[in-house]
Amino acid sequence: MANKLNRLRLKRLHIDTQFEHIVFMLKDSSIYKSEGFSSMSRVLVKVNKKSLIASLNIIDNAILKYGEAGLSESAWTALGAKEGDVISFMHPLPVESMKLVRKKIYGRVLTERDFKDILDDVIAGRYSNVELTAFITACAGDHLNLNEITSLTKAMVGSGKTLHWKNKIIVDKHCVGGLPGNRTTPIIVAIVAAAGLTIPKTSSRAITSPAGTADAMATLTEVNLDDKTIRKVIAQEGGCISWGGSIQLSPADDILIRIERALDLDSYGQMIASVLSKKKAAGSTHIVIDIPVGKTAKVRTKEEAEKLKYYLTVVGKALKLKVKAVITDGSQPVGRGIGPVLEALDVLSVLKNEKDAPADLRKRSLMLAAQLLEIAGNVTADDALAMASKLLRNGAAWKKFKAICMAQGGLKTPRPAKFKKEVRAFRNGIVKEIDNRKLAKIAKLAGAPQDQGAGVVLKVHTGKQVKKGDSLYTVYAEALGELNYAFSFLKSQKNIICLK
Amino acid sequence: MANKLNRLRLKRLHIDTQFEHIVFMLKDSSIYKSEGFSSMSRVLVKVNKKSLIASLNIIDNAILKYGEAGLSESAWTALGAKEGDVISFMHPLPVESMKLVRKKIYGRVLTERDFKDILDDVIAGRYSNVELTAFITACAGDHLNLNEITSLTKAMVGSGKTLHWKNKIIVDKHCVGGLPGNRTTPIIVAIVAAAGLTIPKTSSRAITSPAGTADAMATLTEVNLDDKTIRKVIAQEGGCISWGGSIQLSPADDILIRIERALDLDSYGQMIASVLSKKKAAGSTHIVIDIPVGKTAKVRTKEEAEKLKYYLTVVGKALKLKVKAVITDGSQPVGRGIGPVLEALDVLSVLKNEKDAPADLRKRSLMLAAQLLEIAGNVTADDALAMASKLLRNGAAWKKFKAICMAQGGLKTPRPAKFKKEVRAFRNGIVKEIDNRKLAKIAKLAGAPQDQGAGVVLKVHTGKQVKKGDSLYTVYAEALGELNYAFSFLKSQKNIICLK
Repeated sequence: MANKLNRLRLKRLHIDTQFEHIVFMLKDSSIYKSEGFSSMSRVLVKVNKKSLIASLNIIDNAILKYGEAGLSESAWTALGAKEGDVISFMHPLPVESMKLVRKKIYGRVLTERDFKDILDDVIAGRYSNVELTAFITACAGDHLNLNEITSLTKAMVGSGKTLHWKNKIIVDKHCVGGLPGNRTTPIIVAIVAAAGLTIPKTSSRAITSPAGTADAMATLTEVNLDDKTIRKVIAQEGGCISWGGSIQLSPADDILIRIERALDLDSYGQMIASVLSKKKAAGSTHIVIDIPVGKTAKVRTKEEAEKLKYYLTVVGKALKLKVKAVITDGSQPVGRGIGPVLEALDVLSVLKNEKDAPADLRKRSLMLAAQLLEIAGNVTADDALAMASKLLRNGAAWKKFKAICMAQGGLKTPRPAKFKKEVRAFRNGIVKEIDNRKLAKIAKLAGAPQDQGAGVVLKVHTGKQVKKGDSLYTVYAEALGELNYAFSFLKSQKNIICLK
Repeated sequence: MANKLNRLRLKRLHIDTQFEHIVFMLKDSSIYKSEGFSSMSRVLVKVNKKSLIASLNIIDNAILKYGEAGLSESAWTALGAKEGDVISFMHPLPVESMKLVRKKIYGRVLTERDFKDILDDVIAGRYSNVELTAFITACAGDHLNLNEITSLTKAMVGSGKTLHWKNKIIVDKHCVGGLPGNRTTPIIVAIVAAAGLTIPKTSSRAITSPAGTADAMATLTEVNLDDKTIRKVIAQEGGCISWGGSIQLSPADDILIRIERALDLDSYGQMIASVLSKKKAAGSTHIVIDIPVGKTAKVRTKEEAEKLKYYLTVVGKALKLKVKAVITDGSQPVGRGIGPVLEALDVLSVLKNEKDAPADLRKRSLMLAAQLLEIAGNVTADDALAMASKLLRNGAAWKKFKAICMAQGGLKTPRPAKFKKEVRAFRNGIVKEIDNRKLAKIAKLAGAPQDQGAGVVLKVHTGKQVKKGDSLYTVYAEALGELNYAFSFLKSQKNIICLK
């Protein structure tokens, strides 16, 4: 349906709209008028032999000349465009799978085929941000049943690459999150790899938290590994910790997650699909999942945790995964650091068996590592825990961790941010409660995870006796503006750390 | 929290992103780095003494110089910006009311106060398109109960201006839509105003259809009327037909509707809130609502229509409105024209009592006008219908219509688009079914409502005997490209008009 009138020449505008494809056109362009486009129309554009759907922004003659059009950087890259290339424009046919999204909004049940159709269009860039949001919102808040979650998970696995391994048993570990500082993964990988298991761990960056495992590990070593490097590290050390986004496992999930982040929305069904699709695509067979429960954690009640545990196990089974979900204490942060570097320092401290290493982080890591050894190795719970403890205590885990980091590209020394300020107790008392969400928010306002060294170092846990003027926590930031910003928030809040 | 480092100078970029506020900044701007912003961050910007929240797009040095920033036209206008003005940047505090949206996503019930808080933030431009979509999707698909719909309606009324009138009885009419060509409103206004009732009708432009009443009326007279003009026309003629968007009634609804349009989503609760909030804000007291039912209309079943009727009546009562909802036949288009000009021509034909005026449009208009006369005037149904028929037949309605148009700024002569092409019967038969949705889509692909003269003229209705080669309908377009586009769609479809 393209005719010759439908063509303009591309000019590079260098406008970064992140993921959403935008095309820029003059208001008095003949195409704009003859095709009946309007601003924010969805437009099918074609450059060379590639095409995609973009939203149309209208621009005045200050930037484009008559006969020219521009693209957002995302669209420029996706189309492999060059300055002066010919671009043609058409009305896109409606995205057929949006019918399925509307069906879901109206409470109907979707099939695996439906989810596959939706994700195919999502990956092909046919959904605008508004359409992606409608899909995410329609699936959020418990609107997916067990079959739908399984279907969505399978469709997500199918949306990207799948890794295959020679070993029959590939172990993995995940935490549903919401607990600041709960950085057990690097420690667990070191222990179970030292025990001889294969654990090609792919981790995510922070979604709504001040740090993901990939953010913390990035301060210690290279995490942006390609498939080939991961295989090399695994062949050599049995374990690795890479950023999952670099290897295109479940790429649909990556697109959906950035909208969930913008909404600060953790959807139940999508959380399960996100976790298990990444694991399945990574070739894992045996998985331990940490579900911290606490009134300011992501999962707030025991009932919710039990339901999540059940769903993870059942959906896991449908995907032929052995899933062991462990409900843990999520009432307060784990360890001391909150933020990429500050958490990495806790990890090093535990692995090195330092005297003042955070005992809570050490204990949790051992318990979860033992669970992995137990489900993957047919050993009893007691033997598994003894084995994990021994491997940590005798330095085998630390040695393994260093070897993994060297194989990934070298061990870096993490440095906290340069500005810091203490928050002190305003009276004597005993620490009664710590608000995970508010502390996480302070760390984010201070710059985490973008500023790796920013965040919070917690000096107390519940039950601790403090005197007026004692430091409760320290806020770190790379710029005074951000430090002040975090403080202006924390001063406006009550009960971040509650004394009794 | 603004510090002096946070300032740039504005350069006008003339980029029209429609309603969403965007701010453009260089990647290597000191602000971008020091504040830890990232592309698509939400940023609080301040120009002179006005501020708003915008999404950040990152731009290269081709367009902005170091020390400069740009704004989308929407933000430029909202801030009253001038070339070279100082703009400062801050992290916005999270939009508090998004908590309520998340609550709704999780299936909880919202109060009137909750809806008011959400709409206040919506009107203040604090919601991004993604956040607006989450709100709309969370409320769609029957997720609002009766109390919530009432609360949302009241909050919408409170979001904008309210008109007050001297008369105790102010009548109004609405159609829930979905039925192409059902352009009864101008005829009804003319009849009931001729009967002496007061009907300050505010109409909408098309949301997902090829024409709204305001689109059709805009081809006959000026519809972009301010408050003062409306009062003048009403004082003089008792009736007027203006575009509702120009007088800020229920402005929150206008913002939500453009997202619903992008999603092609007509939400149940929001439809009721949208309709009744506009009516209440317009000062109406007695309202007739046309609910066409048909398998390709907006409302597809009798049950749905009955539920909608019940909800409209109950919510109306809570707002002290007398609402009479009438369930009508929505199995096929009404009249002949589909598209602004083509519908306006049908309206003129009925008002002028032309011999070949579409009988179905005439009959529906009389019936609905009679319903208004009945509920507002305490006359019997039979007397009301007789009165309406008389006023149409004796030319009083046509005279009134001309007088209204003259008072609004003059009577224009609508002209169909210059290109047209027939769609003919491929065999002999009797018309069995007509697909409203597909015909509406053909009219839209042909350019309606943006191109006023574009659309479809239907030559047949169900039950009509046709011979092979007879014209079934004519497609009108302002450009050959669009005519071809509409034809390439209609050729790909079966059963647009089904013969038996």
